[in-house]
Amino acid sequence: MKLQFSKMHGLGNDFMVIDGVRQTVTLSKETIGQLGHRNFGVGFDQLLLVEKSNTPGIDFRYRIFNCDGSEVEQCGNGSRCFARFVFEQGLTNKTEIAVETAKGVIYPKLEADGNVTVNMGVPRFHPTEIPFQAPEEAIIDPLIVAGQVHDISVVSMGNPHAVQVVQSANDAPVAEHGPLIENHPRFPQKVNAGFMEIVSRTEIRLRVFERAAGETLACGTGACAAVVAGIRRGLLDESVLVHTRGGDLRISWAGAAQPVMMTGPAVTVFTGSIDI
Amino acid sequence: MKLQFSKMHGLGNDFMVIDGVRQTVTLSKETIGQLGHRNFGVGFDQLLLVEKSNTPGIDFRYRIFNCDGSEVEQCGNGSRCFARFVFEQGLTNKTEIAVETAKGVIYPKLEADGNVTVNMGVPRFHPTEIPFQAPEEAIIDPLIVAGQVHDISVVSMGNPHAVQVVQSANDAPVAEHGPLIENHPRFPQKVNAGFMEIVSRTEIRLRVFERAAGETLACGTGACAAVVAGIRRGLLDESVLVHTRGGDLRISWAGAAQPVMMTGPAVTVFTGSIDI
Repeated sequence: MKLQFSKMHGLGNDFMVIDGVRQTVTLSKETIGQLGHRNFGVGFDQLLLVEKSNTPGIDFRYRIFNCDGSEVEQCGNGSRCFARFVFEQGLTNKTEIAVETAKGVIYPKLEADGNVTVNMGVPRFHPTEIPFQAPEEAIIDPLIVAGQVHDISVVSMGNPHAVQVVQSANDAPVAEHGPLIENHPRFPQKVNAGFMEIVSRTEIRLRVFERAAGETLACGTGACAAVVAGIRRGLLDESVLVHTRGGDLRISWAGAAQPVMMTGPAVTVFTGSIDI
Repeated sequence: MKLQFSKMHGLGNDFMVIDGVRQTVTLSKETIGQLGHRNFGVGFDQLLLVEKSNTPGIDFRYRIFNCDGSEVEQCGNGSRCFARFVFEQGLTNKTEIAVETAKGVIYPKLEADGNVTVNMGVPRFHPTEIPFQAPEEAIIDPLIVAGQVHDISVVSMGNPHAVQVVQSANDAPVAEHGPLIENHPRFPQKVNAGFMEIVSRTEIRLRVFERAAGETLACGTGACAAVVAGIRRGLLDESVLVHTRGGDLRISWAGAAQPVMMTGPAVTVFTGSIDI
């Protein structure tokens, strides 16, 4: 069958986006793997499949797959691409869209400048919610990595993060310490390791070593976790510009029990047609 | 402007192929670089631009560019993709096509099974033609690499190759010795380093460490050079199946002053449309 798709990216995190509303799409794990190969296929970090929702009041649902066919629970960059895709493709004329994901309903909002704002949910801090082995919830926990104590803040954005403040994001030992933090025994489901440089109360530079992926160009949930951690430590204001290697995000958080709002770009690179 | 393109590969060596016959295409180095990026652009090893030839009797001309905008002189995988592209796109109904490249006119031929045969030119062996620092032409030259003598055969297929026979292609020290051979002072313009395992008189396994690129999935000129070297050493017959990591090629050579013929696959993965 011939499949129409868009190739998109959010801060360099790139997606093959497929309209499963107007096309009937069945994808095996094997097909996803073939499509994901950068030489032999289309090439992507994740495949995003948009479908009609059966739930009243919900506009769409989408699913995100890694190249190995496994499903991704939460993806900030993907949700921005989703919103831009359904609008550009004329699948909706709404700019605020209700969409079911594997993690529940989200409401991405297309801004006038083309950026997309996504409600990334309420951050969680309790050790059992991370999960993290610690006697109680704390703003800063000492973690021993490579024989030294690192002050980390643990945050769950649906996925676990361990954020630390560094003098320079550029010089941070992401490749060396990232895997040690990721696989630290106090994180039974592993963790994403964030390295945040505070530029000012409204600006940070961030690098994230992602669970099972290594350092990526940009991690949406990592940016949320870093800003939340920085606000809780008293280092940052409520709205913060986050510089990542893939580009900039704006993260806002009004404090405890409030959701984190993330605004950032979503770019359609090209549209394509492939026989599968 | 909106640009139509095909994404193709020959043994995993992948190309963005652009019809510059029916489209007016001007590409700056910067644009090529952006298109070549695998996250932010289309992603490819090389970009192949097909144009009309102004020379009587010649059907087309094409140019091949690396991601950095530099032009590639000779590319076997690219010429197969070219032939399949112009036929599939209806730019010609010929199956044997005369095309000008940066290295002269070639005549790729579309076979009934969809494979493409390309005349890769006459191999050259004289040290000045490689270029290689040696007193005279030889079938085998001793080259000192990592303190040991390696028996190499030097072959020019328009670009320089140093081929050696190994017990096992799989276990060959391609990553370790490849760069040492590539940059060996006896090759003033550097060299592509081939590691060939002889399976039988009609079959080899081959890995190639390419100049300025490292090990690639498949190197068309490297396959030609290896088979020519093996025939000259008396180890191979006139037509040889070459297994590379990206797939299989058939290489034929009738001997001195004859051209090397290469037959292999060319696959269209998808077609696309991009605003540049």
